[in-house]
Amino acid sequence: MVIVLNDQATEADIQLIIEKLHTVGAEAHVSRGQFKTVIGVIGDREKVMEIPFEAYPGVEKVVPIMKPYKLVSRDFKQELSVIKVGDVEIGPRTFTVIAGPCSVESEEQILSAAKAVRASGARVFRGGAYKPRTSPYSFQGLGEEGLALLRKARDEAGLLVISEVLDVRDIETVVEYVDILQVGTRNMQNFLLLKELGKIDKPVLLKRGMSSTIEEWLMAAEYIAKEGNNQIILCERGIRTFESATRNTLDLSAIPIVHSLSHLPVIVDPSHATGRRDLVSPLCRGAMAVGADGVMVEVHPNPSQALCDGPQSLTLEEFDEMMRSLKVLASSFERILP
Amino acid sequence: MVIVLNDQATEADIQLIIEKLHTVGAEAHVSRGQFKTVIGVIGDREKVMEIPFEAYPGVEKVVPIMKPYKLVSRDFKQELSVIKVGDVEIGPRTFTVIAGPCSVESEEQILSAAKAVRASGARVFRGGAYKPRTSPYSFQGLGEEGLALLRKARDEAGLLVISEVLDVRDIETVVEYVDILQVGTRNMQNFLLLKELGKIDKPVLLKRGMSSTIEEWLMAAEYIAKEGNNQIILCERGIRTFESATRNTLDLSAIPIVHSLSHLPVIVDPSHATGRRDLVSPLCRGAMAVGADGVMVEVHPNPSQALCDGPQSLTLEEFDEMMRSLKVLASSFERILP
Amino acid sequence: MVIVLNDQATEADIQLIIEKLHTVGAEAHVSRGQFKTVIGVIGDREKVMEIPFEAYPGVEKVVPIMKPYKLVSRDFKQELSVIKVGDVEIGPRTFTVIAGPCSVESEEQILSAAKAVRASGARVFRGGAYKPRTSPYSFQGLGEEGLALLRKARDEAGLLVISEVLDVRDIETVVEYVDILQVGTRNMQNFLLLKELGKIDKPVLLKRGMSSTIEEWLMAAEYIAKEGNNQIILCERGIRTFESATRNTLDLSAIPIVHSLSHLPVIVDPSHATGRRDLVSPLCRGAMAVGADGVMVEVHPNPSQALCDGPQSLTLEEFDEMMRSLKVLASSFERILP
Amino acid sequence: MVIVLNDQATEADIQLIIEKLHTVGAEAHVSRGQFKTVIGVIGDREKVMEIPFEAYPGVEKVVPIMKPYKLVSRDFKQELSVIKVGDVEIGPRTFTVIAGPCSVESEEQILSAAKAVRASGARVFRGGAYKPRTSPYSFQGLGEEGLALLRKARDEAGLLVISEVLDVRDIETVVEYVDILQVGTRNMQNFLLLKELGKIDKPVLLKRGMSSTIEEWLMAAEYIAKEGNNQIILCERGIRTFESATRNTLDLSAIPIVHSLSHLPVIVDPSHATGRRDLVSPLCRGAMAVGADGVMVEVHPNPSQALCDGPQSLTLEEFDEMMRSLKVLASSFERILP
Repeated sequence: MVIVLNDQATEADIQLIIEKLHTVGAEAHVSRGQFKTVIGVIGDREKVMEIPFEAYPGVEKVVPIMKPYKLVSRDFKQELSVIKVGDVEIGPRTFTVIAGPCSVESEEQILSAAKAVRASGARVFRGGAYKPRTSPYSFQGLGEEGLALLRKARDEAGLLVISEVLDVRDIETVVEYVDILQVGTRNMQNFLLLKELGKIDKPVLLKRGMSSTIEEWLMAAEYIAKEGNNQIILCERGIRTFESATRNTLDLSAIPIVHSLSHLPVIVDPSHATGRRDLVSPLCRGAMAVGADGVMVEVHPNPSQALCDGPQSLTLEEFDEMMRSLKVLASSFERILP
Repeated sequence: MVIVLNDQATEADIQLIIEKLHTVGAEAHVSRGQFKTVIGVIGDREKVMEIPFEAYPGVEKVVPIMKPYKLVSRDFKQELSVIKVGDVEIGPRTFTVIAGPCSVESEEQILSAAKAVRASGARVFRGGAYKPRTSPYSFQGLGEEGLALLRKARDEAGLLVISEVLDVRDIETVVEYVDILQVGTRNMQNFLLLKELGKIDKPVLLKRGMSSTIEEWLMAAEYIAKEGNNQIILCERGIRTFESATRNTLDLSAIPIVHSLSHLPVIVDPSHATGRRDLVSPLCRGAMAVGADGVMVEVHPNPSQALCDGPQSLTLEEFDEMMRSLKVLASSFERILP
Repeated sequence: MVIVLNDQATEADIQLIIEKLHTVGAEAHVSRGQFKTVIGVIGDREKVMEIPFEAYPGVEKVVPIMKPYKLVSRDFKQELSVIKVGDVEIGPRTFTVIAGPCSVESEEQILSAAKAVRASGARVFRGGAYKPRTSPYSFQGLGEEGLALLRKARDEAGLLVISEVLDVRDIETVVEYVDILQVGTRNMQNFLLLKELGKIDKPVLLKRGMSSTIEEWLMAAEYIAKEGNNQIILCERGIRTFESATRNTLDLSAIPIVHSLSHLPVIVDPSHATGRRDLVSPLCRGAMAVGADGVMVEVHPNPSQALCDGPQSLTLEEFDEMMRSLKVLASSFERILP
Repeated sequence: MVIVLNDQATEADIQLIIEKLHTVGAEAHVSRGQFKTVIGVIGDREKVMEIPFEAYPGVEKVVPIMKPYKLVSRDFKQELSVIKVGDVEIGPRTFTVIAGPCSVESEEQILSAAKAVRASGARVFRGGAYKPRTSPYSFQGLGEEGLALLRKARDEAGLLVISEVLDVRDIETVVEYVDILQVGTRNMQNFLLLKELGKIDKPVLLKRGMSSTIEEWLMAAEYIAKEGNNQIILCERGIRTFESATRNTLDLSAIPIVHSLSHLPVIVDPSHATGRRDLVSPLCRGAMAVGADGVMVEVHPNPSQALCDGPQSLTLEEFDEMMRSLKVLASSFERILP
């Protein structure tokens, strides 16, 4: 940590800071410039960060030097992680495609979608049973009935399934039905939910908050890892900006940045990022090209009848066509896309 | 609702839309232009909005006309609401000041802060017992022990108290100790929490999500109101932008906008919005001037010892001085600040 | 400046940096931590900043400590500046109201607007002769003819006038007609225009770029000051964010921040910030309450006939009413509003 | 255009709008709902848009239906344009790589960079002679001397050259030396500069403004096209957001969106978008994968000696390596990368 003092800082202010640092066993290296004095701090990061130096007299700003997360960082584990779920590996050697409708609506919808995406090469099937909706008047999902339909589709089509959990009280139920639990963008900083998911023994897919920095996203992952669960898959899904041509702005730069900072796999969801069906295929190819470990896309047998997110869902035919192009491309990037 | 068709829309596409509208009892008014055709829709908003017209063939975009919330709107209730808590009224005739430390740390800290802010004129005391922290390694709050200390401060100092609830499982506990329950910025779209808070009989202070539009904020309030609780106080606390001189960008324009759209009272939290102690006083005055019904500010007996948010906390002396200036100003705006 | 090294930095990397610093006469203070090494740099800011240390081997990041502007800073001149134009003073003791239509349209419009705003208490009259329009098909202004009409209004109504200059080639013309030259939000980083305006002897009103930080804004002002013109008035006019209820998000926090960093006066333009007539009055009061030195508002004798910005223009009656409320408020803030 | 009326709109308000529409030869289709009335407008877009209906009594909002640009749209020209410069074609069949240092510094630097990037496969050489710098104290470029060095490099290395023009007064000079004139992000809405560039007979590369929507970017291109020059190349270079891990957030979704709206070619600049050398290669591959027509990257023989943008410049070796990977990938996308 570096503490920058302002022009009014006195010698007493400097001594107060140095003494406080000594109480937590840290050292202070003071550099006195013509206009500004700077104190370099060497010591235990956690202990030092707990001291509110920004509120001390004479302090202009505090510049953290160390990263605020540990277990999910590449400093902690240099080798990129592979998350194994059943016979699926999510990591640097594969390109995992997760596909399915926004929400579970009916047995017919789910079974036909599951079989079709499996035939096209997806290995994980998505479908929402509990839906976070901006309006209280919108369809809120089928709940456990939806989970049971997902499970049936899983077994009949030979896929793994993923579904979102919204409420800590539902974790026990959801964990019974699905292979991967999803934390949605609105819950990325629902720290209680993260802590509880840190105690289960199934992988968690953690979506980036729509207004979260990459650093905050990795700190949210750290909440899960700290409780003991390091089966974490990150998912970039767009951030909020002023541009209104897309629902959010997909941040593909985040993929190589995450890979440089963390050993966790990271995938891309272009459907929710853009809200536009026509952008899904090019952005899936873009995701692969920047190094993503997979994609998650919305597919619906009949988008114009979908109870949610119809405008961004691919038809089964469009999805199949996209998968063909991704398979060709995968070989250029030495990724297995089965 | 207005449905705008694209250049490729056929007569069959138009008929499909009209027929679908008829199934929910809605009417279609078709305007055919040289380049574009537009369909004006008259009918029950909820039923019409459930149809995913954006996914229909030939549709370029759908423009909603009606507001997506009802119970919290001024169309529903023209008169501005007054939330009564004990002998405090929050609404258009008063200017309510909520003050206190970021988190409950010790009995001594809480009691001295409570007595001081009461003496300066605050009517509601704030203090966090459950803290949402970006890092899992930061102080997470004292929990129920903190609530008990708040309660003690309440009774000794003659104040009402407000504290944040993070977890649906804690509502029963929190409701026993506090007068107003707070929903933090990260939980504005925690819809399960909102629904449960809709079932209690105490006021809820709903902070704006740091990346939420005003419309989304009012829809979050609608979740609470729909379950039967209309004792809702809104709180503007800054939105996320590119500017880094402040932690967030306080959106004071939101105050008169909320008053034009909703009957709910709205207050301003400049401490969390900016993260800077020196901006709190001018922005509290600004909040009053744009029509806010109150402010919420962080005050700490000793900011440089605070376990969180020291840099943005006023000292007791600074708070007292600010209250004097607000009292003078209140008379210009015909607001009672006791 | 502080240079933070990464984990791979070698002793040779450190020596290379130290030697480079010595070539410009700067000193290096090295703090070696367990994980990171940090180099505090003491020396001439300009010379040190020219060295691209971020591109050096072993460097993780460079943290500037000194502010990147000088002449406009309060470190350079502690006392707040007063800009005198004719008999008008813009600075800490007054509240200057600039009012008028978006664009000069006709003699009748301009004369009636000028006389009315003068009668209500405005001291400076605004009107665009050269208009920056997003669309090439929109009205682009009357040019020099518009300036002549402004001049006529100035002399008949007894007001000062301000108008925007878009093109370096027009400066000579504009300076003949107006009392204050305006740089619009789109030209805040038109550095050639700024340099030329630094050579004239009339005040310049510099609007904040709609996506500029406060620091960049002050650096733009530094361009003008560096050429010798320190008659600069800053104008906050909203920044671009995701919120769509207003055209831009007015950043009132910027006012006290600017006053803490710079000696230049700063005013607020709520008309362009929000694009909404109903928000102009509350935000002008808010501007005064946070410490602004004035406001600039759009007023039109007949907004529904305006060639631009009708929806955000006050009528003459609305403006008069607002001025009455501002005059009452001005006394609370010890500001002269004549 | 659709005009949405508010609840207070009277029959007289509706009649006023209808009559005004008739004066410009437009038709009004009125849809009266239970709560809202909507008027669909059929008529000449330019004439109708000039009427400030948002300022009319009873009007809640105006929703434009037609796109605000014409000449650059695919409605105007369905076939994708190819810009020919010398023997280089920029368009859908090729992938054009523009490379070179941020600024022209010396003959040696320029000649060595030019020969190296040519050998690696770049066809266009970039180098700034006039530099827009945030600080007035930073290196501002060599001016015409820099242009002469670029010209020399062009002739010796057998490349085309591109350089930025900042000032309308410099166009005549710049056009003599370079093959393509660049408009930088800060000048995207410098409408005078755009108009003048519309009158020359050389291609213009128009960077997206860092806070501009895609629609505003195309309207800026329309300014150039309207004056007669349709040799326009668009360049995405990142938009300003809250994320600070990169200088700006590269918006790769913009590439397929631009191709759907406009016939103009569009390339990507990952160097300026991110400010990070390590992201340039993956994002160039991502750009190709989403359909970009080329990339522009910063390359410097010795980044740690660069007078600007060292941290984001590739070395000559890194550039050569990246070009090899792009050539392999180009065949998958049926793009010629010579």
